[in-house]
Amino acid sequence: MKQTQMRWRLPAVCALWQLLMIILFGVFVRYDEEADAHWPQTRVSHNISSDIENDFYFRYPSFQDVHVMIFVGFGFLMTFLRKYGFGSVGFNFLISAFGIQWALLMQGWFHSLDPTDGKIKIGVESLINADFCVASALISFGAVLGKVSPVQLMIMTLFEMTLYAVDEYILLNVLGARDAGGSMVIHVFGAYFGLAVTRVLYRPRLEQSNNTSNYHSDLFAMIGTLFLWMFWPSFNSAISHHGDGQHRGAINTYCALAASVVTSIGLSSLLEKKGKINMVHVQNATLAGGVALGTAAEMMLSTYGALIVGFIASTVSTLGFIFLTPLLERYLKVQDTCGVHNLHGMPGIIGGIVGAITAAAATEEVYSAEGLRASFSNRDRMPSVQGGFQGAALCVSLAIGLVGGTIVGFILKLPLWGDPADENCFDDEVYWEVPEEPEPSHSIIISEVPKNSTINGTQAIEHPPTL
Amino acid sequence: MKQTQMRWRLPAVCALWQLLMIILFGVFVRYDEEADAHWPQTRVSHNISSDIENDFYFRYPSFQDVHVMIFVGFGFLMTFLRKYGFGSVGFNFLISAFGIQWALLMQGWFHSLDPTDGKIKIGVESLINADFCVASALISFGAVLGKVSPVQLMIMTLFEMTLYAVDEYILLNVLGARDAGGSMVIHVFGAYFGLAVTRVLYRPRLEQSNNTSNYHSDLFAMIGTLFLWMFWPSFNSAISHHGDGQHRGAINTYCALAASVVTSIGLSSLLEKKGKINMVHVQNATLAGGVALGTAAEMMLSTYGALIVGFIASTVSTLGFIFLTPLLERYLKVQDTCGVHNLHGMPGIIGGIVGAITAAAATEEVYSAEGLRASFSNRDRMPSVQGGFQGAALCVSLAIGLVGGTIVGFILKLPLWGDPADENCFDDEVYWEVPEEPEPSHSIIISEVPKNSTINGTQAIEHPPTL
Amino acid sequence: MKQTQMRWRLPAVCALWQLLMIILFGVFVRYDEEADAHWPQTRVSHNISSDIENDFYFRYPSFQDVHVMIFVGFGFLMTFLRKYGFGSVGFNFLISAFGIQWALLMQGWFHSLDPTDGKIKIGVESLINADFCVASALISFGAVLGKVSPVQLMIMTLFEMTLYAVDEYILLNVLGARDAGGSMVIHVFGAYFGLAVTRVLYRPRLEQSNNTSNYHSDLFAMIGTLFLWMFWPSFNSAISHHGDGQHRGAINTYCALAASVVTSIGLSSLLEKKGKINMVHVQNATLAGGVALGTAAEMMLSTYGALIVGFIASTVSTLGFIFLTPLLERYLKVQDTCGVHNLHGMPGIIGGIVGAITAAAATEEVYSAEGLRASFSNRDRMPSVQGGFQGAALCVSLAIGLVGGTIVGFILKLPLWGDPADENCFDDEVYWEVPEEPEPSHSIIISEVPKNSTINGTQAIEHPPTL
Repeated sequence: MKQTQMRWRLPAVCALWQLLMIILFGVFVRYDEEADAHWPQTRVSHNISSDIENDFYFRYPSFQDVHVMIFVGFGFLMTFLRKYGFGSVGFNFLISAFGIQWALLMQGWFHSLDPTDGKIKIGVESLINADFCVASALISFGAVLGKVSPVQLMIMTLFEMTLYAVDEYILLNVLGARDAGGSMVIHVFGAYFGLAVTRVLYRPRLEQSNNTSNYHSDLFAMIGTLFLWMFWPSFNSAISHHGDGQHRGAINTYCALAASVVTSIGLSSLLEKKGKINMVHVQNATLAGGVALGTAAEMMLSTYGALIVGFIASTVSTLGFIFLTPLLERYLKVQDTCGVHNLHGMPGIIGGIVGAITAAAATEEVYSAEGLRASFSNRDRMPSVQGGFQGAALCVSLAIGLVGGTIVGFILKLPLWGDPADENCFDDEVYWEVPEEPEPSHSIIISEVPKNSTINGTQAIEHPPTL
Repeated sequence: MKQTQMRWRLPAVCALWQLLMIILFGVFVRYDEEADAHWPQTRVSHNISSDIENDFYFRYPSFQDVHVMIFVGFGFLMTFLRKYGFGSVGFNFLISAFGIQWALLMQGWFHSLDPTDGKIKIGVESLINADFCVASALISFGAVLGKVSPVQLMIMTLFEMTLYAVDEYILLNVLGARDAGGSMVIHVFGAYFGLAVTRVLYRPRLEQSNNTSNYHSDLFAMIGTLFLWMFWPSFNSAISHHGDGQHRGAINTYCALAASVVTSIGLSSLLEKKGKINMVHVQNATLAGGVALGTAAEMMLSTYGALIVGFIASTVSTLGFIFLTPLLERYLKVQDTCGVHNLHGMPGIIGGIVGAITAAAATEEVYSAEGLRASFSNRDRMPSVQGGFQGAALCVSLAIGLVGGTIVGFILKLPLWGDPADENCFDDEVYWEVPEEPEPSHSIIISEVPKNSTINGTQAIEHPPTL
Repeated sequence: MKQTQMRWRLPAVCALWQLLMIILFGVFVRYDEEADAHWPQTRVSHNISSDIENDFYFRYPSFQDVHVMIFVGFGFLMTFLRKYGFGSVGFNFLISAFGIQWALLMQGWFHSLDPTDGKIKIGVESLINADFCVASALISFGAVLGKVSPVQLMIMTLFEMTLYAVDEYILLNVLGARDAGGSMVIHVFGAYFGLAVTRVLYRPRLEQSNNTSNYHSDLFAMIGTLFLWMFWPSFNSAISHHGDGQHRGAINTYCALAASVVTSIGLSSLLEKKGKINMVHVQNATLAGGVALGTAAEMMLSTYGALIVGFIASTVSTLGFIFLTPLLERYLKVQDTCGVHNLHGMPGIIGGIVGAITAAAATEEVYSAEGLRASFSNRDRMPSVQGGFQGAALCVSLAIGLVGGTIVGFILKLPLWGDPADENCFDDEVYWEVPEEPEPSHSIIISEVPKNSTINGTQAIEHPPTL
């Protein structure tokens, strides 16, 4: 018998963690100069003509779009499971809110520590980066969805955020790679981390009967899909350079995503039974173009380049859902609930490669001399060298994800965290108060019923219809 | 027997189309100067003081609002059908993603072709215009919802986008009309195009039993309604002039929409059985004020003018749903699933007329001399002449919609495209893999039941399960 | 027998009101100078270098976020009731659209009347303030949800908007308090107003069987929760000072809300049966941090201060839902359907206190000399004096809410407005046309089934209910 009681474990983790955050924020976190009340003076001393040049106005609309992707996009995308809607939206909410606090600290220590006073200076860009950091944990959540306890999720998030900051530091600061929309840092890292975790947590006798959708749960999931899809141009351009960088990032992503929809729906119809379209592909593979542009969106990829990337990524993603996922489970014992390998893993790798190629192909003619330096980390590298570093960054991210996920998987395997029994997976009843459905007509007690319908009646009581 | 298999037809159209798009984008589409990496130089040469003056920051928040209207707004608005949620959201997704690519090209050739190099230069305004263009196809989709195959929808979209670009060129460039929120170009054109198509595709023996909503499908539809309603101020101001034009467009639309809600709910209660409010009116007629301000929102209509327009448009719209739609079906054989004639057709015509009157009534006193020229196409026309051209534009849009829709209707009538049989309309089963509901208890037939369960049975009838 | 027919009452109120609004807007409302067509001249005369400095671009993205909170956030938050979804979303829609028009006038007369011509000048900030004003009515709506008629709601809104403008005038103009996110003006006022109304309308024999959620209604409610949660940083910063004020307001709210989620989910698990998490707390208490930062968000509270406020507010809120709500109903006869006392009342009071303390603790060192004046109403008060006025403002808002709500409650008690009978509360059937569910198989209790009813059973199998 599994002990899934959360009464002491979950509150203890939440309380300790929140108090620790308060203390660490008190010691370390301060407003950056554009969010500080001294800003009017700073403006004058920096010769900035108007408040509208505060970074807030460059990035806040994109930040809010990213915020919607994290909380509604990822949250509702996972509600496709017919009995796990509370867990999908609710645990997504919990670990995101938990994670963004830790991300502000970790990313602050690595990226925005002010050397003059040892404080982390945060502004709107920090909020976007914290949301990005949490996105990787939500991707990993997708791989283990329905099979872990909230305490396991919080521990996973804690370690994953930490590793994310390290990975990001290596990629951006040490290797000087560009990855504004996070193909490598967010998607590859998050997906392979999650896949490694779910591999370690393999359940050979996993009960799959609740690992299904129903009509309305599929519609709820479309809310998630559409908000992810619509706001992905903001995601990929949110932290790009002001002006043409953000502008181009949005245009490229818009194009790639359009191609992904047409491609994945076409492929779904081609390969599914009777030519009917499968909602799993509509919900997921349509997004592959956004993932695959995470590195190159801000570059001079050109719009037809973006269409090609969207086309390839969604093709790979759809084929992955149809052919690869069953093989991964059978042969590699990877039980990937949401198919994150198809939506984030492979498209993320494509994104890293596309970024490397695009960087290597950069010319002064296309970018202008100063544009070239500005676009690629101000390091005066030859484009081909930059392309090599981009490729190295992809490999580093993949390796850190796999190794980190494996280690964390073993930590999560300790019998301390209240994970559900095999037969209770994908069911909200374990961790949530689920309202009883007041439907007296559904579970009729029958005293004399002909023999052959008894089975039917028993089933009715065991499996009340999910509405 | 209808042959509704999509296996070869849908994938073939998707694949061919997507490859064609890649080629055409490669040949024709480039970034405009504000999205290009040469922007820092351009900025200096154009004497622009800051990156914040990049058009991206003027229009991107509005673009994202429009984007949400297209994909979530239109998509979920149509989920009111209880068995057609996948088709509503999914086909909306497919044809929008398909259409925006073609719209970028068509509108580019007509409006933003750079004469120096023969390339289409795109920026954030192009993305908004592509979304606008697709909106007209989604309006037409509403007229034929549930009665056509995805291949028919893609063919309809292809032709409609093409005609849209022609219509838009005639209205804006030839006639010099203003139509920033598209009362004429989007709503009148899209609605009458769709109505003509559904007239040609008339099904005398259409099975209507699935052409109904249920409790939760009506709630899903409210998601669509509300996102359309909330973001309509962005829609009507997205491509207006910087500064006061956008500002005024948002204010006017906000006011008109508020009046529409109060008016249509009041009228619904007045005219429906027992004074109860009908969700159809709440979902649709509340939006009529936004449609009817599509032309005049950016003009100096004044806020009370906006309230009057919202009041009239939603009155006409609600009355249309109650009285006109049944007559249209009975006498004109127009089967208008979503009532687009009431939401887009008539309010669009009102919008065109309001625009003409407002333009004709413009004075230098109200607009200032330079404001008057800037507001109306810089053509040095007398306001009354401008009003006349606006009226002509309305007629042109109506005519192109009706004629184009009729022709396209006959193309869609060819027995090649896999349309559903009369008895399978409004049912996702035809084109979608629909999850089976695991509810064995729903269909029990009991032969002998004891007395004491009768109470239970009575309750069951009094409290039917809410779904 | 209650007479709940709305046929004449609701249409009459809507029509009269809308016509009155048209007249009053015609007499009083004009565009402010940044939305007026004379803006290009104004820009030159005010020495403004670019259209991007139009207030529209500072505030419009935040306005749209606030707009989503009002219509989708509040609307869907209340759909948790399984049979009151239409009423929740629909009445929310009606009274908001009705209220924003009146708010533009009332707030205009008090705050933006141009003394030179006696006209109200509106711009984007006016739209935000109108939405804010309506938020207080929606909070009160939460207290009486399911127990009143739409006519009662409109009358309540009318009086409450009026009082809101008076309260706001006293707080901001007379007392010189700061309350940019409305802890006092919106939340305390709205909550205690609503609680007083529901106290006066106490129903000793209220039928509670429909005052429950089901699985999908809880998921719909999460749409509301998440949009409120995500966009609260925009709410608390929407009308703050340009630049650092808005920037800081968003950062502080972001932090406080993150702490609230972790805290309330932890507490829910600690205190609920078997350690399971309760969706009521996830839907509501997670938002308490946003409410409690309504006054101090724009101040130099520091991020750890924001975390502490979020932690305390959500603790109080969750404890309130578990322990206080039942006591309020039993001993004070306050039937608070949505628990607004827990989400808006107590956290709002905390917000007022936090604002007073933060204002009193302000120093020139932290704010700079000019920052201090600018942040606190330009009145040259000592910080401690300002703190005192903040505290007085809180008391005034509480008092006006309680007294006003009591008076309005007695008005609503007049037997004229068509309120529902005790046994019909929380049920859409009273005021809405609810679609019949086509589910012949759901409520069958058959003692001896004759041969011909087999057809019924067959139908049941042919048309399984769509959920």
